[in-house]
Formats: sequence, C-alpha cells, structure tokens
Amino acid sequence: MADIPENEKDCWIGFDLGGTKMLAVVYDADFKPLGKKRKRSRGHEGQEAGLERICSTIHQALQEAEVSVDRICGIGVGCPGPLDLGKGVIHEAPNLGWANVPLKQILENEFHAPAIIANDVDCGVFGEYRFGAAKSARCVVGVFPGTGIGGGAVYEGHIVRGKNTTCMEIGHINVIPNGPICGCGLRGCLEAVASRLAISAAAAQAAYRGQAPHLHSLVGTELSKIRSGDIAASIDGGDEVVLKIVREAARYIGVAVANVVHLLAPDLILLGGGLVEAMPKLFVDQVKESAKKNVMPSYQKVFDVVAAKLGNDATVMGAASWARECIEEGGLVSAGTKVKVNAE
Amino acid sequence: MADIPENEKDCWIGFDLGGTKMLAVVYDADFKPLGKKRKRSRGHEGQEAGLERICSTIHQALQEAEVSVDRICGIGVGCPGPLDLGKGVIHEAPNLGWANVPLKQILENEFHAPAIIANDVDCGVFGEYRFGAAKSARCVVGVFPGTGIGGGAVYEGHIVRGKNTTCMEIGHINVIPNGPICGCGLRGCLEAVASRLAISAAAAQAAYRGQAPHLHSLVGTELSKIRSGDIAASIDGGDEVVLKIVREAARYIGVAVANVVHLLAPDLILLGGGLVEAMPKLFVDQVKESAKKNVMPSYQKVFDVVAAKLGNDATVMGAASWARECIEEGGLVSAGTKVKVNAE
Repeated sequence: MADIPENEKDCWIGFDLGGTKMLAVVYDADFKPLGKKRKRSRGHEGQEAGLERICSTIHQALQEAEVSVDRICGIGVGCPGPLDLGKGVIHEAPNLGWANVPLKQILENEFHAPAIIANDVDCGVFGEYRFGAAKSARCVVGVFPGTGIGGGAVYEGHIVRGKNTTCMEIGHINVIPNGPICGCGLRGCLEAVASRLAISAAAAQAAYRGQAPHLHSLVGTELSKIRSGDIAASIDGGDEVVLKIVREAARYIGVAVANVVHLLAPDLILLGGGLVEAMPKLFVDQVKESAKKNVMPSYQKVFDVVAAKLGNDATVMGAASWARECIEEGGLVSAGTKVKVNAE
Repeated sequence: MADIPENEKDCWIGFDLGGTKMLAVVYDADFKPLGKKRKRSRGHEGQEAGLERICSTIHQALQEAEVSVDRICGIGVGCPGPLDLGKGVIHEAPNLGWANVPLKQILENEFHAPAIIANDVDCGVFGEYRFGAAKSARCVVGVFPGTGIGGGAVYEGHIVRGKNTTCMEIGHINVIPNGPICGCGLRGCLEAVASRLAISAAAAQAAYRGQAPHLHSLVGTELSKIRSGDIAASIDGGDEVVLKIVREAARYIGVAVANVVHLLAPDLILLGGGLVEAMPKLFVDQVKESAKKNVMPSYQKVFDVVAAKLGNDATVMGAASWARECIEEGGLVSAGTKVKVNAE
C-alpha cells in the first residue's frame, strides 16, 4: 500500500491503559471519536501478551472506525506508574505486574506514527482542559481521590511534568505533621486521611461500631467491597457519621489545595474520580470552603473549584490531544512528523 | 537623531526597584554590564518624584555606559508588591507608599523600547537560573527567607506566574496546623516560623532570658536591630540556643520544600537572601536533610539544594534577561520588537 502523504494524515489515537481495562479510541482531526475498542487488561498473562493486546485493541478500534494505519498522525497513551516520559518507557506498572516496558517504541514500530506516553491522571486533567470542565483554564490543578489521591496540572497549555517522572503528587502534601502513616512510608500525607481508601476505612469502623447502619446493611465492613456509590448511598440513607467523615476528608483536601494555590495561583481546581462523581456537590462545596479559608485574602478570589465532567473519557481524549500538542510542537520529535512554526 | 535600525539595537536595561534602594544596570547583548547607577528610593517623596527618579537613574546608567537611548532593546524591572504583569502596573508597593503605578507605560514612553515588570524574587531566581547557581536547571524553586519568605520558580526556561499576580508564595505553605499567627492572617505558615523576623524574635527572647549572651552583647533585644550577620555571629560566638533556633527554622523550610518537590519535582532548590548568605552551609545542609526526610523515597534523588551566588546582582540581571526572554519570544508584544521564529 502506498503511504499517505503527511498532509493527508488526519487521525489521532488515544489509549487508556488501566489496571483492569484498556481502551483505544480513534479520533478525527476535530477529536470526534470514529471508533473505539475496550478490553480487559489481563496483566497476569504477562507483559508480552499484554503488549500484543494493546496493539490488537488499537487495530480493532481502527477497523471499527474504518481508518487505515497510514492515516494515523500520532498516538497518545495514558499510563499508570512511574514513567520515563522522554524515552516513553513504563518503569513499573504495579497493577499489571509489568516493568521496563518500551511502549513508545513498540507502538511506533507497529503503527509507523509517533507515540507519546504520559501519566494517566495528567491525561485526564488535560482532557478536561481541552474538552471538559476546565476548558481553556490558564492553570488548572486536578485532584482525584481514589485508592490514592492522584494529581495533575495543566499550566498555560502544557502538562506540568517532572524530568523523567510525573509530579503534582498532591496526595503526598503533608496535612498533619506526624499524622497517620501513608502507603508511601511518610506520615500525615493527604492521601492517608482523604483518599477513598481512608474514607472507606473510617466508614467501615463506624459501621462495625454500629454507627453507620445503612452502610453496614449495604456492604458490611469488608473494606475491599466499599465502592464510592456505597459511601454516597450511606450518606443519602442517613448515616450522619459517614457524612462527617467525608466532610473531614474534603476539608483536608481543601488544606492541601490552599497550599497549591499559594504556589501556583491556578484559576481552577478540578475535582474528579469516582468518589467526586458520586457526590460532586458535597465535595466541591466543602473543598472550596476549606481552601478559601486557608489561603491568604489576596488569593481568595483567584481560583474556583469545579467537578470534572468527562468521566472515563477524559484520560483517552487527553492522551490523544496531548499527543497532538507534543508532536505538532516538535517537543517530541519523530520521523515524518510535521513541525509547527510559531511565526507571527 | 536618526533612529538606530532594529538589528543594531544591542543593549538591555535591568532595574531593581527596592524599598530603600533602586539600581539600574545597562548590559550589552552578552549581559556584560556596561554601566550602572544606584540611588536611594525615597518613597516618601511621593510617586511622581519617584518615577522621575527611576527614569533619571536609568539615564545616568546609560551615560556611564556611553550608550544612547536608541540602542536599548528592552527594559526589565524587578518590583515588590502585587503586580499586574500583563499591563505592567504595580498595584501596590507598601514599602514605597505607592499605588497603581503604570511603570511599563512610563518607561516605554521615556525610552521608546519595550518594558516588562516582574516580581523581584522571580527576577532573582531567573538571574540565578541564567547566570548563577541554578544555571540551566530544568526546574528551580527559590526560597529566600527575609522579613517574610519570598519564593519564585523557573520551569523549563520560564518564570512561573499567576494570572495577574505572582505565585510561589512558599512562605504561606502551611507547616503547623493551627500554628503561630502569620502576618497574612493565617496560622502556621512557614513564614511565621522560619523567616528572618521569626528567627530574630525567637533569638531575642533567648537573649532576654540570658541564654544567648553573645547576641545580647551584640545587639541587645531590639528586634529591628538584629541583622542576619548578628545571628551568624551569635552562633559563631557559641550561643547554642540560637543555633537550635536556626536549625529548627531550616527544618521547617525543608518540610515546605518537600511539599514543593512532591508538586513540581524541581531538580534544584535554591536558597538565598541575607540569612542564607550569612550561613550558607548551615542552611543548605539542614534544609536538604529535612526535605529528603520528608519526601517519598522515589523523590529523594530527584533534587538538590544549593545556595544562591549572585547576591544583589541576581535581581537586576534576572530582570534584564527575563525582559529579553519575554520580548524576543513575542509573549509581550511591543512595537518594533523582533520576534524569534521557533523553526526547526
């Protein structure tokens, strides 16, 4: 097949590599989805099988979209774990059991198009920045309470990044000196008191003590079974103590957000993830109140707090559009890639 | 006089507008100083007189440099107080008693060259990034303990900024929930426990109690008389309690730095200001130890801590070179300014 000339390539691939599921979406030049394919990740089947699965998922999304490989401008992948952003290598993906995965190279060999990898939370924030609740914000910082607390920032159109690593580890801002032990080994990190896991543990204790009867009747006290929806249902059902627990967690998120506001003066704080989706108003109101109370007067009107609105689509849309940003800016050079010239 | 063509303009002006002194330096294209002029600021004489003073200081520096006005490519001013960076207006300069000063416009009218204003601490960090201890760092965050604690960051070649304000208010990172009252009205800010003022207050108490005899013999217990050099001399003279006070302050700076490292993953933390200049090793060692102890293991090797080395020159050099950066990038457009084209 003859190669399509550079100027006729018109599609972008977004990929979300999760611990349990993977998702590929083919987008046109306006980021309208043309086709998508979702599969289980099956990390336990090993790395080699996993990489083949990634490629076949993309091929099947292309098939559904009726788009040939040579129309791909670029591929963006949102990944978990510590990454080498420059080389496009996943150092470690604990949820998948993989290590040292040269994902960029594998994708470029398979699809003959430039590929980039980025942190999944960063991609989610970038997706909301380009297409969702944070559209066109000058500086947005995302906070996603889940098992841990993910963070990411887009500053003047770019994902803020570490050198060979991600950053915006807002979950590890210290909020209680010598506070509860965190999974990272430190004490008093935000994550140790305000993640979904920390909230669930506190709520399960209340259920065990008989103080959260609705939660107890829903899921008992088995931590691994408590989902965001159960926490929300427990509050709706009248478990006052669970409401208090969530408010306290959101209050701590506000304390950490205040620190971020002092440092970066973002115009927007974006809250997302399953817990926030289940109780958006409760989280937004409480985080906003706490953050405003904990910043200097001159910063109180600088920022707003909003809930994310693209849900699971944010990561894959963000990955694809961040790939375009990187590739067209020439920041990540790859053979055959157009470079935009910033002439006036 | 005939205007010099754009391509023969070859000088940059740096200006440091301080509460007590002002300094103008004329630089050639390689940022070698050609002439300088320093004057007292005399804020009390009023804003109009002050602005004339700024212009005459620059004119006298040009005279010393034997450079005509029409060779100026641009002017950069490091200013205190809240600023409108876009419009180039100083909202308020409390130390000078001025407000709503349209400095950019005044300078552009007087010197027929584009001018920018920026926060003085930001300029200092940028100066160290371009010419000093933070040369070529990918991301450097500066911490300058003085009366308050100033902060600034350069990320991938650019000063990190708020929308119409500065940011990196590292002095207002919370380090002690419900801790001592800070000048800003909040509680437990870094500034409330680790600024030169906080250190001096603690040291003066010790002197009053008879626990810091060297300090007492040097300056007594009059807070306004305790300078950085006195603190250093007190420690050298054997005032153990003052050493403890400084160590504790540096330890808190390390706690705040750890939060910044989690958020931005800088490769360099730059400590500066009079207090650090008086005791560079003590500060660098103690801040480094504390910061490394308070970051996640994966961040321990990401960053280093160093002392600034340009002293008072950092701000004025930073202001001039940041002006070039802004003006040549076209980020701050001004008539007759060359725009660099980022072609590959």
